[in-house]
Amino acid sequence: MANTSLGAGLQLRSTVKKDGLLDLSLTTVPTPEPKPEEVIVRIDASPINPSDQGLLFGGADMSTARISGPADSPVVTANISPAVMKAMAGRLDQSLPVGNEGAGVVVQAGTSPAAQALMGKTVAILGGSMYSQYRCIKAVQCLVLPPGTTAAEGASCFVNPLTALGMVETMRAQGHTALVHTAAASNLGQMLNKICIKDSVGLVNIVRKREHVDILKKIGATHVCDSSSPTFMDDLTEALVTTGATVAFDAIGGGKLAGQILTAMEVAANRTAKEYSRYGSTTHKQVYIYGGLDRGPTEFNRTFGMAWGIGGWLLTPFLQKIGFEAAQQLRERVAAEIRTTFASTYTKEVSLAGALQLEEIAVYGKQATGEKYLINPNKGLR
Amino acid sequence: MANTSLGAGLQLRSTVKKDGLLDLSLTTVPTPEPKPEEVIVRIDASPINPSDQGLLFGGADMSTARISGPADSPVVTANISPAVMKAMAGRLDQSLPVGNEGAGVVVQAGTSPAAQALMGKTVAILGGSMYSQYRCIKAVQCLVLPPGTTAAEGASCFVNPLTALGMVETMRAQGHTALVHTAAASNLGQMLNKICIKDSVGLVNIVRKREHVDILKKIGATHVCDSSSPTFMDDLTEALVTTGATVAFDAIGGGKLAGQILTAMEVAANRTAKEYSRYGSTTHKQVYIYGGLDRGPTEFNRTFGMAWGIGGWLLTPFLQKIGFEAAQQLRERVAAEIRTTFASTYTKEVSLAGALQLEEIAVYGKQATGEKYLINPNKGLR
Repeated sequence: MANTSLGAGLQLRSTVKKDGLLDLSLTTVPTPEPKPEEVIVRIDASPINPSDQGLLFGGADMSTARISGPADSPVVTANISPAVMKAMAGRLDQSLPVGNEGAGVVVQAGTSPAAQALMGKTVAILGGSMYSQYRCIKAVQCLVLPPGTTAAEGASCFVNPLTALGMVETMRAQGHTALVHTAAASNLGQMLNKICIKDSVGLVNIVRKREHVDILKKIGATHVCDSSSPTFMDDLTEALVTTGATVAFDAIGGGKLAGQILTAMEVAANRTAKEYSRYGSTTHKQVYIYGGLDRGPTEFNRTFGMAWGIGGWLLTPFLQKIGFEAAQQLRERVAAEIRTTFASTYTKEVSLAGALQLEEIAVYGKQATGEKYLINPNKGLR
Repeated sequence: MANTSLGAGLQLRSTVKKDGLLDLSLTTVPTPEPKPEEVIVRIDASPINPSDQGLLFGGADMSTARISGPADSPVVTANISPAVMKAMAGRLDQSLPVGNEGAGVVVQAGTSPAAQALMGKTVAILGGSMYSQYRCIKAVQCLVLPPGTTAAEGASCFVNPLTALGMVETMRAQGHTALVHTAAASNLGQMLNKICIKDSVGLVNIVRKREHVDILKKIGATHVCDSSSPTFMDDLTEALVTTGATVAFDAIGGGKLAGQILTAMEVAANRTAKEYSRYGSTTHKQVYIYGGLDRGPTEFNRTFGMAWGIGGWLLTPFLQKIGFEAAQQLRERVAAEIRTTFASTYTKEVSLAGALQLEEIAVYGKQATGEKYLINPNKGLR
């Protein structure tokens, strides 16, 4: 295949302007000539993850969004509250590319053997700027998908799969033997169930709706607790006693759930205590908040002794901590099981311009379970 | 000195009864014959620390307290709410002795040389049941006070001094270089200032009243932020920038302060950031809650990125973690500096019966800065 220049491609950009407005638009960027160790990937699929939406929307109130410009190059504008603007100081007036991960075909390659070996292959990549038609990236960063895998199947190889694997690895590294997960019927939550079933790890799933219990039971989950049920705290405590889970990963963030989990863990720990301990159980109980589906304040009564922690958890520092070799093993497991353990499902595939339609933003912006979108930057353009 | 039996002595007891009532009373307990490695200490001084009050009051609403019985052996009764009773399940109908630490004179000793060597010495001891006239304890647990030190001067050798030293040690062990402390004008807070001045460690003091600023400035504190001031968040941020403090020890527990500290730490960390980081600063920011002066819920907005933690901190697990040798070094430093760095002041000295008077409970039960009581179990009885 000849290495001809690809010219230029569309890219989605997000700008937080000094005057308190968010601006989303498409721009044309030149596709660079790949250096010897680099390749050009034509992005055919890139998911809109919750973790993309922080950068994409810049904390704007999307109920105020309005659209202008031509149909194939719309501009979306929305208001950002003064309180949120304070947190945006670091990105003012910068036109930022978006999209953590994606997959596509290597259409141009640098002169190195490693780059040349990838020509024509379907690969998954991580590293930002994925809501673009073409992405230049180092060959070593490309995860080659098993033959026959489509870009859509491989689009979510990193964020959700590595986060789910990272939770299990963190659990093990910190001496816990089972774990709790919230918003558990999500794509990520389903992957986590498949991992835990395969690896025989105890998992307590917390969901917020009755119908989500069924989703998880269908894929073989043992412990599913519905936080909307009047028996939630009792159900959770029983599941914690059975599994011995003392660490939780919480995608919700706001509200009382983190504290409820710690409280139930404390009750479970005290079930087996032999004498009264005035400062509560000595078992360390930990909740890691890794998402913010509820953007409201976190609130808890400290009714769980003194051996507890709540903290942030993020994929990138976790991968840095375990090092390249260990991270590479996790990535290779993902590629090998991308159509089984790590399979994702999407509600809809949209083009770059489609992702900027107000009616689409209204759906994927909710971050509701089962409403995940896939952007195909080359949709309708090839 | 002859090892004659001491017969019996009074002891303060706290009972949470199944019917939801707290019962505080004095009981007479036999003083045991010391084993070879043990001594009997006549307790002449034992502080009422905030950490004693949890066990003492059992979460009862002390505004409902009433008193009965004779003047020298009163019985205090108070109501416990059903919600609190749940947390008391482990101690129902058990008559529990109280008092973490104290000091007094060794009046009887076991036959071992180590025990005999302590006869007549004024010692400080830790281990519960200190609101008693006599306490049997292993000789190895006695901290001999420097000659001329009174029991009142040595009564608080452990809880506050070791907690203050433990904060500085924890800061160092976790790679922080300066620290924040709340309710900072307390006895403990004043000790922490003296330690940090002596050891050249940066310390940001947070107080809740204007007059507490002056208390700390007088003993040489550099950074004192008043949370009741309208400029509190700015003052705190500036102090964090100057000191580089990224760990805090919080005695308050409830309310918004822990979150405010993390928010200010994040602003301080971002002052020096070179480019926009979508998940906030990568500097780990930690708040340890070690007290509960505000028993209400803890609430925070997660406006401080993802590299943060909030958790419980307790002296005993800290001492277990560092091991006996390291802990002994800290204890010896306390004894050597008990009249300077680790000097405590008390509002009032009361007898065991005096500690059960409603008007006294109303004062020390507030746990207000500068209102610390000392119990002398042998007051008026010798």
